[in-house]
Amino acid sequence: MIKVAILGATGYTALELLKILLRHPEVEIVAATSRQEGSPPVSSVHPSLFGRIDLALEDLSPEEVGRRAACVFSCLPHCASAEIIPRVLAAGAKVVDFSADYRLDDPATYLEWYGHQHPDPSRLGQTAYGLPELFRDQIRSADLVANPGCYSTSAIVPLAPLVKSGWFELDDIIIDSKSGVSGAGRQPKMMTHFPECNESMSAYNVGRHRHTPEIEQVIARWAGVAPRVIFTPQLAPMDRGILSTIYIKPRRVVSDAEVLGLLRDAYAGERFVRVVDHLPGTKDTVDTNFCDVTARVVRGRVLLISCLDNLVKGAAGAAVQNFNCLFGLPESTGML
Amino acid sequence: MIKVAILGATGYTALELLKILLRHPEVEIVAATSRQEGSPPVSSVHPSLFGRIDLALEDLSPEEVGRRAACVFSCLPHCASAEIIPRVLAAGAKVVDFSADYRLDDPATYLEWYGHQHPDPSRLGQTAYGLPELFRDQIRSADLVANPGCYSTSAIVPLAPLVKSGWFELDDIIIDSKSGVSGAGRQPKMMTHFPECNESMSAYNVGRHRHTPEIEQVIARWAGVAPRVIFTPQLAPMDRGILSTIYIKPRRVVSDAEVLGLLRDAYAGERFVRVVDHLPGTKDTVDTNFCDVTARVVRGRVLLISCLDNLVKGAAGAAVQNFNCLFGLPESTGML
Amino acid sequence: MIKVAILGATGYTALELLKILLRHPEVEIVAATSRQEGSPPVSSVHPSLFGRIDLALEDLSPEEVGRRAACVFSCLPHCASAEIIPRVLAAGAKVVDFSADYRLDDPATYLEWYGHQHPDPSRLGQTAYGLPELFRDQIRSADLVANPGCYSTSAIVPLAPLVKSGWFELDDIIIDSKSGVSGAGRQPKMMTHFPECNESMSAYNVGRHRHTPEIEQVIARWAGVAPRVIFTPQLAPMDRGILSTIYIKPRRVVSDAEVLGLLRDAYAGERFVRVVDHLPGTKDTVDTNFCDVTARVVRGRVLLISCLDNLVKGAAGAAVQNFNCLFGLPESTGML
Amino acid sequence: MIKVAILGATGYTALELLKILLRHPEVEIVAATSRQEGSPPVSSVHPSLFGRIDLALEDLSPEEVGRRAACVFSCLPHCASAEIIPRVLAAGAKVVDFSADYRLDDPATYLEWYGHQHPDPSRLGQTAYGLPELFRDQIRSADLVANPGCYSTSAIVPLAPLVKSGWFELDDIIIDSKSGVSGAGRQPKMMTHFPECNESMSAYNVGRHRHTPEIEQVIARWAGVAPRVIFTPQLAPMDRGILSTIYIKPRRVVSDAEVLGLLRDAYAGERFVRVVDHLPGTKDTVDTNFCDVTARVVRGRVLLISCLDNLVKGAAGAAVQNFNCLFGLPESTGML
Repeated sequence: MIKVAILGATGYTALELLKILLRHPEVEIVAATSRQEGSPPVSSVHPSLFGRIDLALEDLSPEEVGRRAACVFSCLPHCASAEIIPRVLAAGAKVVDFSADYRLDDPATYLEWYGHQHPDPSRLGQTAYGLPELFRDQIRSADLVANPGCYSTSAIVPLAPLVKSGWFELDDIIIDSKSGVSGAGRQPKMMTHFPECNESMSAYNVGRHRHTPEIEQVIARWAGVAPRVIFTPQLAPMDRGILSTIYIKPRRVVSDAEVLGLLRDAYAGERFVRVVDHLPGTKDTVDTNFCDVTARVVRGRVLLISCLDNLVKGAAGAAVQNFNCLFGLPESTGML
Repeated sequence: MIKVAILGATGYTALELLKILLRHPEVEIVAATSRQEGSPPVSSVHPSLFGRIDLALEDLSPEEVGRRAACVFSCLPHCASAEIIPRVLAAGAKVVDFSADYRLDDPATYLEWYGHQHPDPSRLGQTAYGLPELFRDQIRSADLVANPGCYSTSAIVPLAPLVKSGWFELDDIIIDSKSGVSGAGRQPKMMTHFPECNESMSAYNVGRHRHTPEIEQVIARWAGVAPRVIFTPQLAPMDRGILSTIYIKPRRVVSDAEVLGLLRDAYAGERFVRVVDHLPGTKDTVDTNFCDVTARVVRGRVLLISCLDNLVKGAAGAAVQNFNCLFGLPESTGML
Repeated sequence: MIKVAILGATGYTALELLKILLRHPEVEIVAATSRQEGSPPVSSVHPSLFGRIDLALEDLSPEEVGRRAACVFSCLPHCASAEIIPRVLAAGAKVVDFSADYRLDDPATYLEWYGHQHPDPSRLGQTAYGLPELFRDQIRSADLVANPGCYSTSAIVPLAPLVKSGWFELDDIIIDSKSGVSGAGRQPKMMTHFPECNESMSAYNVGRHRHTPEIEQVIARWAGVAPRVIFTPQLAPMDRGILSTIYIKPRRVVSDAEVLGLLRDAYAGERFVRVVDHLPGTKDTVDTNFCDVTARVVRGRVLLISCLDNLVKGAAGAAVQNFNCLFGLPESTGML
Repeated sequence: MIKVAILGATGYTALELLKILLRHPEVEIVAATSRQEGSPPVSSVHPSLFGRIDLALEDLSPEEVGRRAACVFSCLPHCASAEIIPRVLAAGAKVVDFSADYRLDDPATYLEWYGHQHPDPSRLGQTAYGLPELFRDQIRSADLVANPGCYSTSAIVPLAPLVKSGWFELDDIIIDSKSGVSGAGRQPKMMTHFPECNESMSAYNVGRHRHTPEIEQVIARWAGVAPRVIFTPQLAPMDRGILSTIYIKPRRVVSDAEVLGLLRDAYAGERFVRVVDHLPGTKDTVDTNFCDVTARVVRGRVLLISCLDNLVKGAAGAAVQNFNCLFGLPESTGML
C-alpha cells in the first residue's frame, strides 16, 4: 500500500479525491490537513464520508506530512501551495499539486495573471504538466506534478491533436466554456449563493480567466508560435461538469471525418478520452474520469465539443491518474 | 399616488416588493434605505431592476423615512425592525413589517424563541396580523401590520377553517413544509451555497423553527385552547415556493367533500386563496399572490396541502395586500 | 378594449402570453383554441391560471377566430400556422405569428431548412419581422407580424448596431447560445425528460438549427452581402433564459467603449433593450421583456453578450410588444 | 467470476446496476436484454457507458438468460417481471427482482393495489424481502429476492427498531417522503418533463401509492397487529435522493437519546445504515448505498428522518447487496 496525504482537505476537490482514494486498491490515506482546531474527524466537514473514513483533520507541518506519506496531494489555494510544496518535497514525498502554482513555465506570466511573485520560481519550467494523455513520460519520472486546470483540460484535450496536425490557424481559437458551480469552490459567496446562480447562466472573468495562459502555453509547445486564445468561462446552474465549445479555423477544407480521425488517432488506446460521434452532454461524464470529445465542421470552421467532470477529470481524477503514473500503476487503477 | 418607502431594500423580499410596487397604479416609491455607503442606485444591488427604477439606496433616519412616505415597508431583520418602527410610526407613516417582531402577542414568547427582550413590548398583542383573509377588519383600521411568516401563511390558511369548525383534534397537528432557498435570505452561507443545497433535500431547525409559536398563537385564537403543532421545515433545491403537507386528526369520520367544503366556504370570494381539487404544485403559484389549497382524507386523517410563493404571498405580495387594506384600495390592486 | 384570440393555447408560449394579456389594460381575451375535445377550461391545462381566466379551450375554425378577435396570436407549430393564418387574415383580424412560417423571405430557404413547401409563399418577403426596436415602421402598418425566434432576437439585438457600423467582418460571426429547457416546448420527450437534461449541458442541432437562416437574413438587410453565421444552440438545466455569447471580428482596433457606444446609440430610448456595463445573467431578465446586452474586446475580437427570457422577449412579450405596435398603443403597455 | 444478466436494461435502475457491477470484482456481465431491434450496444442507450462495456442489448428468452447467468437481475416492470421470472428460475439461475411483483405476501393485496391477478401467486409469501439489514437469513438461502421499493426502504429502516421496541403506537404512523425525479423512471411524461417539475414541489398519489401496503406488511411482521400508515410521496426537483420524515407516537415519554439508542443498537455493525446525530441531507447519500437516519423528539412525537439514493440503496445498490448475500460474498463487495 502506498501512503498518501492530502493538504487542505476541506474543499470539494479534496472530498472527491478522498472518495476516489477510498476505492483505490493500492492506497492508504495517512493524513488529511486543515487549519481547523481540535482535530475534528474528516466526516465532520464531509458528512457523506461518515463511517467511511476514520481520520482526523490535522494541522501538520509540511515536513511531517512529507515524512508520513509517499505521495502528497495538495489541495491548497495557489500561492499557499508553492510555499509549502518545496518543504514537502524536501521531506521525501512526491507531490501532485491541484493549484495553479506549477502550471506555468514563466514567473513573469505567473506574476501577470496571479498578481504576486512566485514563491518557488526555480521549479517553473521544470514541472511535469499533469495531463498523462499528452505528457505521460515527463510525469512518470517526476517528483512534482502540476494538475491541470479544469477548463484547461477540457480545452487542451480536443485541441492538441488539431494543433499538432498543422492544419489549423492558431491565432483565432475561441473557447466558450460552461461550468458547474462546484468549480468555484466551497467558500460561500454571492455569485454562488443558490438563489443568485440557480436558474441562471452568466459569463464571468471574460478575457481575464487564469486558465487562458495555461492553455496557450501548452498549445505553444506544439505550435512553435504563441497562439491566441479567447476563452469565455460561464457559470451554469448545475453542480458539476464542463462543456467546452471550441471554434478553430482550418487552413484548408476539412471534413467531420478527417477531424474525428485526428482525434481518434491521437487517443487510440487512451482509457479516459472518448472520441464520440454523438454530441456528448456533461452528464455522460459526471462522476467519471472521462473526457468526451467530438467535432463538427460548420460553415468552414471546426467546432470541437468536450465534456468532463470538473471535480474528477478536471481535478481529483486527473490527480489520481497522475499518482498512478508516478508510482508505476496502471493509470486507471481505482477509477473504473 | 400614495408615497411609500422600503427599509432595508437589498434583500430578496425587498426586490420582490419593488417589482410589485413598480406595477402598482396607486404607488410612488420615494425612498429605499440601506446602510451601504455612497447612495448607490437600487439597480446596483438588484440588476434586474436596471432601467426600471430611478432611486438610490439611502442611509436615512427612521424619522426622515416616516416623513417622506405615507406607508413604510420594513424589510429589516427582527429586533432591528422593532427598534426603528416606533420612530417611523411617530413620524406619521403607517408600517407593514416583514420581520417577526410584531407577530407574537406575548413578550415572554418572543424572548423564548428569539432570544432577546422585545424592544417595543407595548405594541405586542395590539398589532394586526397581516393575513387579510382572516383578519381584514383589524388590518383596515391599523397603523402597523405584522406581515406573517411565509411558512405560517402556508399553514394557517388551510388550517383556519378546520380549526374553526370544531371537528378536529388540536393537540396533534403535524406541518411538514418544504421551502425554496430564497426563504433563507440573500446572505451567502454554507447551507445555501449552491453545491451544498442543490440536488439535495434536508430538514433544518426541527422542533425549533420560529414560525411554530406564530402558527400556534393564531390557531389558539379560534381554538380556545393552546394547540400543539409539530412543524418541520425542509429545504428544497429550488428558488421559491413552499409546499406544506399538514396532517390533522378529525374527531369524527369526515369525507374529502366535507373538508373541501369547509375550505370553499371559508374562502368563497377570496381572490388569493384557491381551493382546488387537484394536488397543486408550488410552480402553480410562483410569481403570484395565490395560496392554493386542497384536502384529502387518508386512513382517517385529513391531509391538507398548500402551496405559495414564499416571496409573494409569503412576503411581498401579502405586504402589498395589507397595504391595499390599510389604504382602502381593492386588495388585489397591482397584483393580478 | 381590443379583442384578442390565441390559436394553439396549450403550450408554454401561450401560457406566458395569457399571463401578460391578463394584465394588459386594453385587451379582452375572447378565444383560446385547441383541438382538445369537450371544451375544457383553459385552467385545466394551465393550473397556474386557475381562478384567473374564465375561458374554455375551443376547437374553432380560423374564420370564427378571425371574426371574434381584432388580433389573433398564433402559437401553432410551423407549417400548421401558415395553413391557417391566411384564413384568419381573410376574416379581418390582424395576426402575430409565433411560428417560423413568415420569418424567412425566400420560399426556397424555407424549403431547405423546414423540409416542406411553404403553404402561403406569396406573403414571404412581404411580412413584417417583429423586432420593433429594428423594424417598428413596417410593423405599425402591417396586418401580419412574424414574431422572431428566441435565439434570433438574442443574436440580432446585439449584432445589429455593429453590422450597421460597417466596422466588422461579416463572414465569421460565431453565436454560442445557451437556452433554458422551456424553449423546447411542452411536449415530453427524452431530451427534456428531467433526469436526462437536469444537471447537464449539451449542444444540439449543431450547424443545423433553423434560427440560423433567420439571423443571416436579418443581418444581410444591413450588410449588403450574405453574412456567414456559425450558430451553436445548447441546452442548459434551467426553465427559462437565453445567454448568447457572440464573437465578431472588427476590421480595425476597437475599444470596449466604442462598441458599448454603438450599442447605446442604437438603443437610446428603447424601453426593452438595456445596454449594461456589467456581465448580465439570464436571471436579470427572467419574467421580463428586457434584452440585456454588453460588449467586451478580448484579444482583438469583440464579444457580445446578451440575455433574455425565451418565453417573454423571445416569444410572448415580443408578441405583445408587436400587438401594441399594430394597434398604436405605447409599446410597453401591459409589460412593466 | 459469477455470471450475471440484466433483464430490461434500458432504464435508470439498470444503468445504475451496470455501473456498480462494472466495478464488482466477482462479477461478469454476460447479458443485457431489451426488446429493441438489431441488438444495439448497451452504450447506445446509456452514453455514459461508452467505452466501458462491450455488450449488446439482446432480445433473449428467459430460458436463455437463465442458462447463461448464475444470477439474473430483473429490471422489468411489475406484472411483466412475474411472468418471466418463473422461467428464469426454472432454467437454474437465482433472481433479484426490482419490481414489486414478489414483495407482497398476499395475492389479494396485490390485486387490490396493482389492479390485476398475480401471474405467479404461489411464490407470494415464500419470497425473501431484500432488506439484508433485517432479513439477511432468508435472503442467504433464497433463490429469488424481492428488492424493496425505494420509499419502503427509506421508511422501514428507521421504523423497524422502533416497532420492535414495543414503545410506539402503530395505528398512526405518518411518512412524508420527498423523492428525486429519477424515481419516476425513464419514460418521458408530462409530470417529469423538465419545465413542469423543475423548480416545483408537489405531492402525488396521496393515499394511493403502492409502497404503502409493502411498508405495512413488513411492519406487521414485528407488530403482530396491522399498523396504519399514512404515506405521502412528493416529487422534488432533483435527480436522485429520498428524504423521508416520519412521525410516530410513543406510548410513553422518550428522549432523543433513547430513540437514537434504539437505532444504534439495531444497526451496530451494519455497513450501510448510518445512524447520525446531525440532520442528514439526501446529498450525503447520493451515489452511495448508505441509508442515513436520525431521530428527534418534538412535542411528544418522535420524528425519524432518513435519506438514501433511490437508485442505489433504493434499487441497484440494494440489489447488489442482495446478490452478495445470495452468493456468500461480503455484503459490501463492489460498493465502497
